[in-house]
Amino acid sequence: MTKDVLRVETILTTTEDVLRRHGLAKATVLDVARALGVSHGSVYRHFPSKAALRGAVTRRWLTRARAVLATIAASDDPAPERLSRWLTAAFESKRAKALDDPELFETYRTLAVEHTDVVEEHVTELLAQLRAIVEAGLASGDFAPTPPDVAARAVFDAVARFQHPLLASEWARPGIGAEFDGVLGLVVRGLLAR
Amino acid sequence: MTKDVLRVETILTTTEDVLRRHGLAKATVLDVARALGVSHGSVYRHFPSKAALRGAVTRRWLTRARAVLATIAASDDPAPERLSRWLTAAFESKRAKALDDPELFETYRTLAVEHTDVVEEHVTELLAQLRAIVEAGLASGDFAPTPPDVAARAVFDAVARFQHPLLASEWARPGIGAEFDGVLGLVVRGLLAR
Repeated sequence: MTKDVLRVETILTTTEDVLRRHGLAKATVLDVARALGVSHGSVYRHFPSKAALRGAVTRRWLTRARAVLATIAASDDPAPERLSRWLTAAFESKRAKALDDPELFETYRTLAVEHTDVVEEHVTELLAQLRAIVEAGLASGDFAPTPPDVAARAVFDAVARFQHPLLASEWARPGIGAEFDGVLGLVVRGLLAR
Repeated sequence: MTKDVLRVETILTTTEDVLRRHGLAKATVLDVARALGVSHGSVYRHFPSKAALRGAVTRRWLTRARAVLATIAASDDPAPERLSRWLTAAFESKRAKALDDPELFETYRTLAVEHTDVVEEHVTELLAQLRAIVEAGLASGDFAPTPPDVAARAVFDAVARFQHPLLASEWARPGIGAEFDGVLGLVVRGLLAR
């Protein structure tokens, strides 16, 4: 059992490596098996199709991206600061990915378009993190009464300019940091109790 | 002089018609001259290149899209209501364009990408309208003290999900109206005096 779990992780790590070095076109089950030095049958045993393999690697990428945000969402910071930290970290990490390695970012963007179900899971998890912060702010009285689900979604949508992969080309613009700060301030003030 | 002004308008109206009926590939100076039944020289006299003609037709399209918003921005409504009306009208009209005639919308989206200077003028004008509403709200005491330029930009950026042409494919989703309302409420509350 442990051996099998390891094997799945190994396959995904190798798939990421193949994606990074050769791009999407070369990331087939056969290519990954070759890079691992195993028969393609032993990869197919875990991932019955190229789509299954790609969906799994997309899920792992998004899960990793979410981990640092989960830590912030679960922290003890007052809700307004926690929300600011969460939104800033979400923008900064995505921006760094897009600007530092645009080719790999584009690869994962294409994977995300192919696997909308995996992206939906990711968005659901992000919204749950935001809702936890909103609920903390409601409990502490920092935030004005509001349905937490609606507020979490509104916050998420209000920062789309700084999160949506289709807008990544704008994140290199000189004024983008100040523009993000402007939206961040507006969003946090929009939640505060009066 | 009047005759010349009329001629420019006629050329642009015909260009819009050619774009609507035949798409971008067929909207050259020659095609437009043919549709007008004039020599291409008489079109070139006003628009020395295809780029000049396309830039002008893009500018006219955006100016028209802005006109209804300008009326709202200059109205006597209390600033919070005026801002809600402005943002709602901006989303509704763009959404209608994208959904009612996706082909024409895509044509103008391509034109906008070709003529970023024209789009920048447009954004500058929209930001000036938003700033006027923010200033009205500051004068009336409805809005909390804030630099109007920064606030206008923050409002504009916070609704990018409902304005950016690259995200148009999401405007047909069933929940989009409720999501817009959520962001609208958050943005307006973010500006209100406490």
